[in-house]
Amino acid sequence: MKCLRLFAIAVLFIVSLTVRAFAADYLPSWNDGAPKQSIVDFVQRVITPGGKDFVAEPQRIATFDNDGTLWAEQPMYFQLAFALDRVKALAPQHPEWKDKEPFASLLKGDLKSALAGGEPAIFQIVMATHTGLTTEEFEQIVKDWIATAKHPKTKRLYTEMVYQPMIELLAYLRANGFKTFIVSGGGIEFMRPWTEKVYGIPPEQVIGSSIKTKFELPDGKPVLVRLPELNFIDDKAGKPVGIQMHIGRRPIAAFGNSDGDLQMMQWTAAGKGAYLCLYVHHTDADREWAYDRKSSVGRFDKGLDEANAKAWTVVDMKRDWKVIFPFERK
Amino acid sequence: MKCLRLFAIAVLFIVSLTVRAFAADYLPSWNDGAPKQSIVDFVQRVITPGGKDFVAEPQRIATFDNDGTLWAEQPMYFQLAFALDRVKALAPQHPEWKDKEPFASLLKGDLKSALAGGEPAIFQIVMATHTGLTTEEFEQIVKDWIATAKHPKTKRLYTEMVYQPMIELLAYLRANGFKTFIVSGGGIEFMRPWTEKVYGIPPEQVIGSSIKTKFELPDGKPVLVRLPELNFIDDKAGKPVGIQMHIGRRPIAAFGNSDGDLQMMQWTAAGKGAYLCLYVHHTDADREWAYDRKSSVGRFDKGLDEANAKAWTVVDMKRDWKVIFPFERK
Repeated sequence: MKCLRLFAIAVLFIVSLTVRAFAADYLPSWNDGAPKQSIVDFVQRVITPGGKDFVAEPQRIATFDNDGTLWAEQPMYFQLAFALDRVKALAPQHPEWKDKEPFASLLKGDLKSALAGGEPAIFQIVMATHTGLTTEEFEQIVKDWIATAKHPKTKRLYTEMVYQPMIELLAYLRANGFKTFIVSGGGIEFMRPWTEKVYGIPPEQVIGSSIKTKFELPDGKPVLVRLPELNFIDDKAGKPVGIQMHIGRRPIAAFGNSDGDLQMMQWTAAGKGAYLCLYVHHTDADREWAYDRKSSVGRFDKGLDEANAKAWTVVDMKRDWKVIFPFERK
Repeated sequence: MKCLRLFAIAVLFIVSLTVRAFAADYLPSWNDGAPKQSIVDFVQRVITPGGKDFVAEPQRIATFDNDGTLWAEQPMYFQLAFALDRVKALAPQHPEWKDKEPFASLLKGDLKSALAGGEPAIFQIVMATHTGLTTEEFEQIVKDWIATAKHPKTKRLYTEMVYQPMIELLAYLRANGFKTFIVSGGGIEFMRPWTEKVYGIPPEQVIGSSIKTKFELPDGKPVLVRLPELNFIDDKAGKPVGIQMHIGRRPIAAFGNSDGDLQMMQWTAAGKGAYLCLYVHHTDADREWAYDRKSSVGRFDKGLDEANAKAWTVVDMKRDWKVIFPFERK
């Protein structure tokens, strides 16, 4: 009997590892309160077999914005910092940039004048720094940059400026059978080289903005060349389009922080069953940054109104998160 | 001691389920021979820890063409049969089709005249039958059709006309830690409604040709409307582009049957480690169809030359497969 019991315990232990993961273990950086409770309640409802809100595992799709939701986005989008560093690195090959905006101002360190040209200026910078090379070359450049570049304020690697509570949330959802995706306005190939290591999200679960690529066979060696032509903008009304294109089913949980995520939330909320829409509100000027309705980066205005009107979950970073970044943990 | 041994056996048994799946169990419809051996050898090489060809599980990406590789494609692509049925269903709403090609010929049952217009005619048929409705409406139409439409020769459901040995191969690869994807020239949203049930491949692992969609909010209810505008052609040089866009890493195994798959094979073969490129050659006029270099559907000419030159695996359906379709099994 003792022997059988030990056997049964072994089997049960192994099975239990895969069946259910308790929130208490998974969300240590979240303060108790309504947001944490709404997450845990939602997860318990959709994983409980026989419950009215049960969702089969393949349908447990969760989509996360990246900038401002999984990692910081101040004082500028990190991908823009990457592009600026690329302009400097490429300048010797482009003597004409000395007299050509937005490059001339950038090379003088005058970011404000460089970006005064608005979206066309940013477009020029992105095309000049992200195209004209193969996908493998670009991947290596991103890997090298992300391994060394430091944030101007914290002097930390950019991959250290991820939100510890969101990292825990990703793991908690996956432990409960969710498949986690990034759905970001940022460049798809700027994220893929590091999302698996940092977030546990593999390249095939990263959706983002993209340029066109072209298959070529120079000297019999196949390459994909990155062309200076936009393919897709994965922002605002583009997010549900990107979700359908890449995932082909509607998320039951969506996480964002800005108006750029609103359509993803609307699309998620319009599903037939239980859903969770969660907005991260940047309220902590001491530990991170505080910004919302009037910010040019990560504006959170219409999204905040709709979240309030529809009683979606809004995380107050200052109130709800014990730590913001992993390096704050004792 | 006896008790400990039983305990150890229980643990080892459970572990072994996840570690290694033997080919003998998984490929019963494959005759012994070089193709089966090349599959098994490849899988054993990449899953053997410490071996020189070992590939970590997240990198075990396998991509499969659909038409002619996973299911049949004669006497016409099954999606074209779907489109023709849609033309008939929609005809009452389009009285002008009676005098307008290619619809007029189609409605008279004269397929040959209808398709005499070549690609522009097919384009017109696809746009008239695949667009102007929401993604959810289209999904339902595909589900209804695939559940009822019968193949003209066998009178079987189209989903019964899948290749039993390939179904086994998909399961064998997945049991060995591979992630299996479809990379088809066919419409992405024509495949997704049934690939999970039939192939075990979820929608997010289906890559195909697509039209553009647009997010709209009529009466506050979000929808994605299918627009009469091409987005992407996932064929020939488009296949590596589609693979990069959706997966973001290079496959280590690729499966196809036509020249449309050649660039996917080249892209796969150009990886740094071990790879498997496998072509299905349609050689069985009795049990299926026999066609290759001169066929308008699934032409296999340049691909066959390159497969021979590079010693890729070529499956001779007549010689290598015990059964073709699941319904042939005793």
